[in-house]
Amino acid sequence: MITVSIIGAGNVATHLFKAFSKTKTVSVKQWYSRDLNKISSFKNKVEIVADLNGLAEADIYIIAVSDDAISSVSEALPFKDRLVVHTSGSVGIYDLDKKNRRAVFYPLQTFSKEAKVDFKQVPICIETIGKKDYPQLKSLAVALGSPHYRVNSDQRKALHLAAVFVNNFTNQLYRVAHEITESEGVEFDILKPLILETAQKVQTMSPYMAQTGPAKRNDKNTIKRHLKQLKNEQHKAIYNLLTNTIKKTHGR
Amino acid sequence: MITVSIIGAGNVATHLFKAFSKTKTVSVKQWYSRDLNKISSFKNKVEIVADLNGLAEADIYIIAVSDDAISSVSEALPFKDRLVVHTSGSVGIYDLDKKNRRAVFYPLQTFSKEAKVDFKQVPICIETIGKKDYPQLKSLAVALGSPHYRVNSDQRKALHLAAVFVNNFTNQLYRVAHEITESEGVEFDILKPLILETAQKVQTMSPYMAQTGPAKRNDKNTIKRHLKQLKNEQHKAIYNLLTNTIKKTHGR
Repeated sequence: MITVSIIGAGNVATHLFKAFSKTKTVSVKQWYSRDLNKISSFKNKVEIVADLNGLAEADIYIIAVSDDAISSVSEALPFKDRLVVHTSGSVGIYDLDKKNRRAVFYPLQTFSKEAKVDFKQVPICIETIGKKDYPQLKSLAVALGSPHYRVNSDQRKALHLAAVFVNNFTNQLYRVAHEITESEGVEFDILKPLILETAQKVQTMSPYMAQTGPAKRNDKNTIKRHLKQLKNEQHKAIYNLLTNTIKKTHGR
Repeated sequence: MITVSIIGAGNVATHLFKAFSKTKTVSVKQWYSRDLNKISSFKNKVEIVADLNGLAEADIYIIAVSDDAISSVSEALPFKDRLVVHTSGSVGIYDLDKKNRRAVFYPLQTFSKEAKVDFKQVPICIETIGKKDYPQLKSLAVALGSPHYRVNSDQRKALHLAAVFVNNFTNQLYRVAHEITESEGVEFDILKPLILETAQKVQTMSPYMAQTGPAKRNDKNTIKRHLKQLKNEQHKAIYNLLTNTIKKTHGR
């Protein structure tokens, strides 16, 4: 049995707590939040604490707080030589206080407060200093049923950056599409199957191979017509830039 | 029973033929291609013809050829006053020769030659001149099990344009993410669950509500760090433009 204590009360902390609670090989020893109200609804399931000095011994301490607070929370821990991880994609591993053994346990997914999380669909990127602490963190990912990958700092940061493109930026393209359909009083719903299929296609095919459309074909008439149709200057700028990027990728 | 004849041998024509063949209420009378070799493998299942003059009477003629050829093919049809539709998102309904009753039957999806198509996931946008021909085209969509929507020309063109954003441009963002991960030797696979979840989220939530990330939060430090990380000028331009668009959308 691996014992973990969770520090923080946000989405990641909450989803990790729920997921660990369902495993047979990981036991959550304590859950810390400086504001106990945030986790008080779990007090029958786990010991909750509001003082870092109340943290008992555990195999792994998981700091799942906002990026800005990771460093100071790790400094405030009242023990040393234990395994302490953060869950951020962008914060350095060396930002954790060196009095403890440091590592990163980064779940690469988008978490909503309400939505259920299936950890089988949450890849865990594990970064450690040296090899020693890797096996235990790997066991933690295995217990969750998550795909897991060993990464270094540069790789984790590249993933975090790439995630902004496939998540935030892609979602903004959906938003632009919503604005375009709305302006003609037509339902955005009609686009939803295409949105899903586009995401599904690259599960088995590279984005390069999956590309289609006027930019890839360099269909000048359609591109011209689309640009004329677009009234919003920002939409037009996105159309131009991404069309040119596709042309470049496909040697047009 | 509705009888249809299909004109063209591309992806849309082929997927429509296969889908109609499975229905109990639609019968494909003939399939035309100027190059019979392209459809000869279906000759035991349907009458194939290479001469438009060989087209017999049918309730609906579906022109599923490249956008540029729609107009001339419709002109070359050797009959009049019958129902003739094209399947394009961007070609005008009036580009069809007026000697026949004109309409559009536009399946809004991305079709690959190999991949199976589930028409339940293919919304059909139906445009007619006047109301008379709508019920029969609606029956055609119903026979396929497809969601169907009645649209006008402007709405269909808005959908076609919006589809470029959610399909081609989104796919190019996946491609950029692939380039970013590849440059650090880390697997693109790690991003695939996030890609799917991002698409799934907007099935039940508006893109506006689904947005998260540094641009929405106006997290200047992370944005600065990401821009420093990006070496490719085009990637940087995309990052800047979409970050600014997100900020504008969310009033930052």
